[in-house]
Amino acid sequence: MIHILDLVGTAVFAITGALAAGRKQMDIFGVVVLGCVTALGGGTLRDVILGNRPVFWIADTHYLTIAAIAAIGAFLLAQRWRLPAPVLMYADAVGLAVFTVIGFQKGFHSTHTHTIAIVMGVTTGVVGGIFRDVLSGEIPLILRREIYASASFCGAALLALLSYLQLPGLFTVSAAVLTTLVIRLAALHWNLALPLFQLDED
Amino acid sequence: MIHILDLVGTAVFAITGALAAGRKQMDIFGVVVLGCVTALGGGTLRDVILGNRPVFWIADTHYLTIAAIAAIGAFLLAQRWRLPAPVLMYADAVGLAVFTVIGFQKGFHSTHTHTIAIVMGVTTGVVGGIFRDVLSGEIPLILRREIYASASFCGAALLALLSYLQLPGLFTVSAAVLTTLVIRLAALHWNLALPLFQLDED
Amino acid sequence: MIHILDLVGTAVFAITGALAAGRKQMDIFGVVVLGCVTALGGGTLRDVILGNRPVFWIADTHYLTIAAIAAIGAFLLAQRWRLPAPVLMYADAVGLAVFTVIGFQKGFHSTHTHTIAIVMGVTTGVVGGIFRDVLSGEIPLILRREIYASASFCGAALLALLSYLQLPGLFTVSAAVLTTLVIRLAALHWNLALPLFQLDED
Repeated sequence: MIHILDLVGTAVFAITGALAAGRKQMDIFGVVVLGCVTALGGGTLRDVILGNRPVFWIADTHYLTIAAIAAIGAFLLAQRWRLPAPVLMYADAVGLAVFTVIGFQKGFHSTHTHTIAIVMGVTTGVVGGIFRDVLSGEIPLILRREIYASASFCGAALLALLSYLQLPGLFTVSAAVLTTLVIRLAALHWNLALPLFQLDED
Repeated sequence: MIHILDLVGTAVFAITGALAAGRKQMDIFGVVVLGCVTALGGGTLRDVILGNRPVFWIADTHYLTIAAIAAIGAFLLAQRWRLPAPVLMYADAVGLAVFTVIGFQKGFHSTHTHTIAIVMGVTTGVVGGIFRDVLSGEIPLILRREIYASASFCGAALLALLSYLQLPGLFTVSAAVLTTLVIRLAALHWNLALPLFQLDED
Repeated sequence: MIHILDLVGTAVFAITGALAAGRKQMDIFGVVVLGCVTALGGGTLRDVILGNRPVFWIADTHYLTIAAIAAIGAFLLAQRWRLPAPVLMYADAVGLAVFTVIGFQKGFHSTHTHTIAIVMGVTTGVVGGIFRDVLSGEIPLILRREIYASASFCGAALLALLSYLQLPGLFTVSAAVLTTLVIRLAALHWNLALPLFQLDED
C-alpha cells in the first residue's frame, strides 16, 4: 500500500517538475531531467547524507522509469489539455505525506535517532521541490509561502512521538500520513500561511 | 587516448566556468571556484551517487590542478584577448562526448545496469554546466535550448546498445564519442533545437 | 577551545542564513531550513565528498540543535530589534576561520594530501554561504566581492605549510585561525577586494 502510494508520489512530483520546466520553456530533455530531479532529488539527498548505498533509484530502477514516463506524459498532454490544478495539488499532498513517512523510516533505520529521522522525513518530502525551483530559477516557494514543509514536519514529528510510544506500525504510519495530508489540504483550502519574517532593514 | 581527451575536457569545462564567472564580475577566486565546479561537478555528483570513494579528483589530483590552472589561464588571457567562441564550443563538444563515455563506463562498472549507466553518462557530461549556471544565477541553458544534454544522451544510449551487443570496446567507445560529437556539432552548426514545452497557462 | 568556537561559528552562520531568509520574506520554517543549510551545508558537502559516514551533524546532533535554535532566535529577535551588522560580521569572520581549520583537519585526516585538505577547508568555510545565496535566489556574493573565500584559502594554505614543516599543532592552528581572521577583518575594514574579471564581450 505504502509502496503503491510511493510510486504515485513519484509520478506526481515528476509531473510538477515537468510543468515547472514547461513554464520556463525548456525542451523535452529538460522536462525529463527536471521531472526526475523533482521526483528523486529528496530521496537521493537523504540516501547520500545517510550513506545508504546504492541510492534508492539505483537499487530499484522502477522509480526512475516512472518519473521519466510521468514527465514525458505531462509534456505530451500539456500540449493539448490544461492539467487541472486542484487534482495535481491534492496528488502532490499525497506524495508529500508518503515521502515524509518513507524518509522518516529510512532515517530512523540508519541512525536510530528521532531528530535525524524527522530531518530525513522533511528532506525526502521537500528537497525535490527545492531542487526544481532552483533549477528553474525561482526562489524555492516551499520555503516562502503556504504550509508545505511545515505539514511534512508535523507528520514526521507525530511519527517520532508515536514510534517512541511504541504504538503499532500500521496505526503510526496511517496517523502520520493523514496528519500531513490534512494539514496540507487545509492550508490549500483556507489559504493558510505561517507568519512571515518581518525585517525592516534596507 | 581517452585519458588525454578527459584532461582536455576538464580544461575546457573549467574555461567555460571561468568565462561565466567573468560575465558575472566575480573575482579571481570566484573564477577558480566556478571553473573547478564546472569541470569537476558532474563527475563528483556521479561518484557521490554511485558511492565511489574517494571521488575521482581526490583519487587523482591532476584533475583539480588542471581545472584550476585552466581557470586562472582563462582569467589572465581574457583580460587581453577575446577568446574565440567557436574554438571553445568545439572543444566543449569534445569534453561533453568524452565525459559522457567515462561517466557511462563508471556507472556500468558500479551497477551493471544499462539504464543507470546512461543516467551517469549524461550526469557526468552536463551536471557541471548546470552547477555553473545555477552558481552564476542563470536558469541552466543546457536544459532550455540547443541539443546538448540530448547529444550526451544519444551517445550514452548508443554505448548501452553496442556494449549490450558485446561489440569490441574500442569500436563501441569511438562510435559513442563520435555520435555525441557529431550531434552536438550539427546542432551548433544548423542551430537545431528540440521542440519546446508549449504551455499556455498564465 | 576550537570545539566551542566551532559551535559559535555554527550559531553565527545559522543567523546569517536566517537573516537572508528574512530578507526574502520566508516563513519561520524557511528561516530554520536556511539557517541550518548555511550552518551545516559546508561541512555536509565536505563529509559527503570525503565519504565520512555519518556526516558530522548526524554523529553529533548538537550542531543541528544549535543551528535551529540560533535561526529561531534570530527570527524572534529581528521582529523587534535590528541586529547590529558589525557584530555579526566579526562573528561571521570567526566562524569562517574556525570552519576552515576544522575542514582542513578533516580533509587531511581522510586523504593525507595537503591540496585536498586546503580544498576541504575552503569548502567547509564557504559552501554554506553559497547554498544560502543560491536558495535565496542570489548570485553567491562570496564568489563576487570582498575577500572572503580568499581569506579562508590563505588560512588553509598556511595550515598546509606549517603542518608540512611539522610545527606544533596548537601554534599551527592558532596561526591559521588568526591569518584568516585578520585578512577577513582587514578586508571588511578597508573594503578591500580582489581584481575583478574584466571581460568586454557582449
